[in-house]
Amino acid sequence: MMADISKLMDNEVVMAFASYTTIILSKMMFMSAATGFSRMTRKAFVNPEDCASFGKGENAKKFLRTDDRVERIRRAHLNDLENIVPFLGIGLLYSLSGPDLSTALLHFRLFVGARIYHTISYLLPLPQPNRALGFFIGYGVTISMAYRLLKSKLYL
Amino acid sequence: MMADISKLMDNEVVMAFASYTTIILSKMMFMSAATGFSRMTRKAFVNPEDCASFGKGENAKKFLRTDDRVERIRRAHLNDLENIVPFLGIGLLYSLSGPDLSTALLHFRLFVGARIYHTISYLLPLPQPNRALGFFIGYGVTISMAYRLLKSKLYL
Amino acid sequence: MMADISKLMDNEVVMAFASYTTIILSKMMFMSAATGFSRMTRKAFVNPEDCASFGKGENAKKFLRTDDRVERIRRAHLNDLENIVPFLGIGLLYSLSGPDLSTALLHFRLFVGARIYHTISYLLPLPQPNRALGFFIGYGVTISMAYRLLKSKLYL
Repeated sequence: MMADISKLMDNEVVMAFASYTTIILSKMMFMSAATGFSRMTRKAFVNPEDCASFGKGENAKKFLRTDDRVERIRRAHLNDLENIVPFLGIGLLYSLSGPDLSTALLHFRLFVGARIYHTISYLLPLPQPNRALGFFIGYGVTISMAYRLLKSKLYL
Repeated sequence: MMADISKLMDNEVVMAFASYTTIILSKMMFMSAATGFSRMTRKAFVNPEDCASFGKGENAKKFLRTDDRVERIRRAHLNDLENIVPFLGIGLLYSLSGPDLSTALLHFRLFVGARIYHTISYLLPLPQPNRALGFFIGYGVTISMAYRLLKSKLYL
Repeated sequence: MMADISKLMDNEVVMAFASYTTIILSKMMFMSAATGFSRMTRKAFVNPEDCASFGKGENAKKFLRTDDRVERIRRAHLNDLENIVPFLGIGLLYSLSGPDLSTALLHFRLFVGARIYHTISYLLPLPQPNRALGFFIGYGVTISMAYRLLKSKLYL
């Protein structure tokens, strides 16, 4: 029984999917830390209890504000969520559908590279179309896996 | 080894889950494209670098604004994320728990149909309770799968 | 074939992952219901069609407003999404990588407990660092699973 499970993770495509997924999800989690850190350094909070230590009453209220830098990180984070969730679902099912190893690796590497490039373009920021390019490569990779999955395994 | 993996995707419930999941995640990805498209046509941007090509300095600033249409698409997208993520996780584990094929198909079809109906109701928009109905059918399907999963396979 | 699938769910770690995932995703879905309920009781809507039954024209417009309570629930919900999505992806792959049962259970229980504590801290609200503690325990658990996964199964 344990052996059967291990066999699933011995499959090279599944192992590669696990590795790239873990990397890109860790990168996404970094955005949470970056948001928290930028809220602290820029003193821009949204919950009254978060800035209670900076003062009381009216004095604390001035820290309840939006900040361009914080909002930019939050947008990059939400864009990650919107794009990594489809990659997770479609990529897992694609990996289980027995694709060619080199084709699968190409998909995973392009996606992870494109999303890291997207984050860098968003945070610096780089002029467009840098961020758009990162977005569309990641988008295209996911659509390509969805297409191969539906073509080979459609069951409605 | 490869054979074991293929067997997983030869299971009809898993294949059906893969097909419906790929369809509904592709629909969700369409919301990203719709947001980008409506930002372009309505000239309503949130990042200064996105409207740099429309003018410089003060002239570009007028394009940094929120637009009702764009915000509506973004709300539909976020509602998708909030509801499709639980479907992904619970649905995958439900599919692996060996449910009856016809029961599983009923769940997947209802969910995908309800979420498409939710999006149409949100974007047109249709009067309530159209959107609420789409939401609650999808919600109920996921709760039903969660209930069956916990009833048959609870291990805490 | 059906037997192979059942075997996957007979694995105790996978069963435990399925149980805890279903619980935490159900808790996350509760946030949707809480948002809807608080919008109703506090009469604070964002879509004109949602408050059409409360009056027409100018009379309905006063219900299109943001409310601190509703926004707090929405922030707790988004924080759930941002943290449960990495747990879903990394946790599933970690479960398939054949970890020790007691170690795996420790990870799952800590994560689910920490996220429930985070929600309670956010909604009451409790003073900081209660919510921060809930956040960091969940975050640490996911990072720990990612580390073990990459250490044992890295394939790039």
